[in-house]
Amino acid sequence: MAKLPSVGKKSAQRLAFHFLSQTQDVVDQLAETMVRTRRNIRYCDTCFNISLSERCHICSDAGRDEHVLCVVSEPRDVFSVERTHHYHGHYHVLGGLISPLDGIHPEVLRIQELVERLRSGTFTEIILAINPTVEGDATLLYLNSVLASFQIKTTKLAYGLPMGGDIEYADELTLQQAFHGRTGI
Amino acid sequence: MAKLPSVGKKSAQRLAFHFLSQTQDVVDQLAETMVRTRRNIRYCDTCFNISLSERCHICSDAGRDEHVLCVVSEPRDVFSVERTHHYHGHYHVLGGLISPLDGIHPEVLRIQELVERLRSGTFTEIILAINPTVEGDATLLYLNSVLASFQIKTTKLAYGLPMGGDIEYADELTLQQAFHGRTGI
Repeated sequence: MAKLPSVGKKSAQRLAFHFLSQTQDVVDQLAETMVRTRRNIRYCDTCFNISLSERCHICSDAGRDEHVLCVVSEPRDVFSVERTHHYHGHYHVLGGLISPLDGIHPEVLRIQELVERLRSGTFTEIILAINPTVEGDATLLYLNSVLASFQIKTTKLAYGLPMGGDIEYADELTLQQAFHGRTGI
Repeated sequence: MAKLPSVGKKSAQRLAFHFLSQTQDVVDQLAETMVRTRRNIRYCDTCFNISLSERCHICSDAGRDEHVLCVVSEPRDVFSVERTHHYHGHYHVLGGLISPLDGIHPEVLRIQELVERLRSGTFTEIILAINPTVEGDATLLYLNSVLASFQIKTTKLAYGLPMGGDIEYADELTLQQAFHGRTGI
């Protein structure tokens, strides 16, 4: 249990004692659900989001905008963007960000698959929804050079003050970006 | 001591005992500095930032760009923006944000003074560096209607992902704004 993310020694012990206090049925059910979920979940053949079938529910949804493609690092980012309820296009999951120190080179990511989708696709805008971190910036730069030949409008997310935030508590770099990206009213 | 901001009962007691353990000289000096600072600090007659004289060091600095005016809520915001080392224009401190529930109406803020500065000034851009909160939005709207008659370019700070942040942990509203304000690469 202690090997799980954000579960330390003490939490692990608490979890273990919790399972012991439950009936056998409850534990059996949880264990079976875990095994079944792990077995049935796969990656979508098109966008590489997690999926129950060859094509995920977003890729097979005819109601979505087939002209916009949002490129993200991980499946969890798809869930984050979906929670905003304001994006209705398609996704492409890279499976990570470029980080040579961790051995993650561009070839490891699903960039070739992205290029192939763009070649055969109807996309008129690609939104790079990549984290504003060192690895994210490296990936953004690389993607931009790869996508340059496609003549498709390429955008990145706005950087600036988080909503509800406070200028006083914003770090220098964020405040600098907020000034740099200031918009007309 | 417990009346100070972010000082609870326990911290107050710790501070009190700390003073008792110091020599009389140290305590005298601290007390005198506090009294002298409070007596000497005043508001700048021009921008209403805190100042040691009628005109603060920013207003009297001939090296600053006299064409750009950054409107902020509180003097502490001036310090935050200065820390970025990327803004070289002048400031105007409103002294708060519109919040009718707290009795802060537009007349209480230094908006009339702002209008007078704009009338006699050389400003070609006004940057409203106002917190992205409910009170901030109300103030932004009000200022925008007041400034509309001036034909001066008015901008607000960019809203979006904070630098080094993670899409996964961004709240829905911030991520929505990051999509809305996406920029070409």
